[in-house]
Amino acid sequence: MKIQLALDLIDLEDAKQLVVELGDLIDIIEIGTPMIIRYGTKSVSEIRRVCSKKKILADLKIMDAGADEARIGFEAGADIITVLAVADDTTISAAVNQSRACGKEVMADLIGSANPEQRAVELDGMGVDYICVHTGTDVQATGKDPLEELRMVQPVLRHARMAVAGGIKPMIMERLMPFEPDIVVVGGFITSHEKPKQAALQLHENLV
Amino acid sequence: MKIQLALDLIDLEDAKQLVVELGDLIDIIEIGTPMIIRYGTKSVSEIRRVCSKKKILADLKIMDAGADEARIGFEAGADIITVLAVADDTTISAAVNQSRACGKEVMADLIGSANPEQRAVELDGMGVDYICVHTGTDVQATGKDPLEELRMVQPVLRHARMAVAGGIKPMIMERLMPFEPDIVVVGGFITSHEKPKQAALQLHENLV
Repeated sequence: MKIQLALDLIDLEDAKQLVVELGDLIDIIEIGTPMIIRYGTKSVSEIRRVCSKKKILADLKIMDAGADEARIGFEAGADIITVLAVADDTTISAAVNQSRACGKEVMADLIGSANPEQRAVELDGMGVDYICVHTGTDVQATGKDPLEELRMVQPVLRHARMAVAGGIKPMIMERLMPFEPDIVVVGGFITSHEKPKQAALQLHENLV
Repeated sequence: MKIQLALDLIDLEDAKQLVVELGDLIDIIEIGTPMIIRYGTKSVSEIRRVCSKKKILADLKIMDAGADEARIGFEAGADIITVLAVADDTTISAAVNQSRACGKEVMADLIGSANPEQRAVELDGMGVDYICVHTGTDVQATGKDPLEELRMVQPVLRHARMAVAGGIKPMIMERLMPFEPDIVVVGGFITSHEKPKQAALQLHENLV
């Protein structure tokens, strides 16, 4: 199980310091959508400069122009880009084809899908590398978490690996463990913690 | 009827020259999603510097974190930001509230909506300022255009103004005119034209 650190509402210089400080406590660095909007792909290339060996995911949430937008992400140094599961199949396939051409990977984000289970089966068939069940920030505020969707989606995946995101903290980690997701995305629990390294260590205790 | 120029796959310096060259032939400048991904909100602020009086729309296609992402767009100088119609209602409302607080506007993009007519009624009720029927780039390649959705959605709007996007060129403009959309979004027909100013003039001939 890999820990993906989502960097969302954080200054780019602070983000660079944080990923260096956390070192091997995290496996994948996610440049979150708010950072992409604020800094563009410069955020990807600058984080790449301080973390040359770690996987970087650019959370582009592609909805259209799948080939072009994926290419922009990969050219900046991303190893994985995200496409929205609610995007048209033509867009998903264009992003997948671009990632194959670049030797990189695509994660499909199920946020907002009306029927996550059925869409996951379709996405799996389209060749995405990861499928992420994701309770968005705004929906988390209504008290929801991604457990129920994880329970539905995890059993239907044949090829794609499973990721889970949305307000993950130690208490939820415990409940995720039985589903053995390949990637657990953690954001605010680490980035908003007074002692981020301690927060990351605490998550690792739950990984055992 | 206003012409919105979508700047998508274009170098930022070229984009700055283009908007100055086109002057009052365009009414709204759209910083397209690929430019946002590539340059971040620097693309908004730099275009603002060369076009101080024109409306700028940042095509953020917000899917989550409605308040924060909208704020980042407005702080950079955008007058209008976009939110995806497929986003959760909590996200749409957060973006609308943020825009009210900033004295700015929100456009909801119907791209990918399963039931555009019903969603348009809901979005209208949520207070978005514009609703855009939009055939995405990847779907245009399958031969579709936004006319059918425009026909369905235009009559149901009570407060929001109507926008239309997706492969717009003079031939399609003629067919759009009877629906009197408030905003017509034009991209490649101008930006990929050998003589962009001539392309813009040609569109204006169809506006009469």
